[in-house]
Amino acid sequence: MSKDPVLTLIDLFARLPGFGQRSARRAVLHLIKKKETLLPDFANAIQNVIRTVRFCPVCGNLDSQSPCHICMDNERDGHIICVVQDVADLWAIERSAAFKGRYHVLNGLLSAIDGTGPEELKLPALEKRLKEVSPLPYELILALPTTVDGQTTAHYIIDRFKDLPVKISSLAQGIPLGGELDYLDDGTIRMALNSRH
Amino acid sequence: MSKDPVLTLIDLFARLPGFGQRSARRAVLHLIKKKETLLPDFANAIQNVIRTVRFCPVCGNLDSQSPCHICMDNERDGHIICVVQDVADLWAIERSAAFKGRYHVLNGLLSAIDGTGPEELKLPALEKRLKEVSPLPYELILALPTTVDGQTTAHYIIDRFKDLPVKISSLAQGIPLGGELDYLDDGTIRMALNSRH
Repeated sequence: MSKDPVLTLIDLFARLPGFGQRSARRAVLHLIKKKETLLPDFANAIQNVIRTVRFCPVCGNLDSQSPCHICMDNERDGHIICVVQDVADLWAIERSAAFKGRYHVLNGLLSAIDGTGPEELKLPALEKRLKEVSPLPYELILALPTTVDGQTTAHYIIDRFKDLPVKISSLAQGIPLGGELDYLDDGTIRMALNSRH
Repeated sequence: MSKDPVLTLIDLFARLPGFGQRSARRAVLHLIKKKETLLPDFANAIQNVIRTVRFCPVCGNLDSQSPCHICMDNERDGHIICVVQDVADLWAIERSAAFKGRYHVLNGLLSAIDGTGPEELKLPALEKRLKEVSPLPYELILALPTTVDGQTTAHYIIDRFKDLPVKISSLAQGIPLGGELDYLDDGTIRMALNSRH
């Protein structure tokens, strides 16, 4: 006999980030109790994603059209490209509704420990994109995390494109909105002090 | 245009217990990144569950056979029935591998606040089951939570079946294995003291 379908589904849920066996059991049980409504919706939604969602060949965003709706939106400023690590970061910036340019998803960061070099990321694709589209100059906004790998990647990008007529900026760093000084780490406070304006 | 398939899937995930928008986004992004492997497995597992999994008409367990494999297992003692609130509790007892009888899933607890009466639970089905199967006597093990509703339900069951030749027992209550006294609530310690043996 093949493995029990319920156990199979629980094991799959347990492989999602933030899930363990216990929370997976809870989620699956909830789904099965809503067998007539939620479960078919789930099945359809997953089939839809499999059938339609692709990574955008231009920017690396996820969308059901290709190129993605951001790349195809003529109201957006194609001369400003925001470089992000991951699609999740792109979504976060889109939710802020503060950016009306285009994106470039690197799909990771340079990392000596993980052995991720520039060729593993979408950096050659970014270079090609910068050189192909006219008219230059572009502005590149580096929206990369303030971690060692994030900053290494930022420095690498600045260095790699220093001969192109491209303005490169980074997100401002400092105290987050509503951030209580008492709860912030020393590094953030030091950085906010040094970058005071 | 219909709603974006990715957003639809995120919204469905966010309706699962223990999930919010953020964790749903994380899970969906992880799934889409494994589009070639994990996502089709997910779709198949859900289809299998929809197609095969049913609530057992005898005991209320979830299984792909009907009656379930526990009810059909002749090596199990059909004269001991363990009464649980929920399929999750049945699974928990099965994992302990300490019980070789059958089950009865109530699908909830009596609750004055939620307005759940005996007819909403599988209590008439339990009575029918007790009266139909011979030879009696049965033992009923009440594996119900030590909450107000759980204990109300236990008392109700004891009262309802007091005229049947059925022995009714409850799970022992006390200090859990590895339980540090210092971290246990007062009620548990008091109960463990009163029930000392």
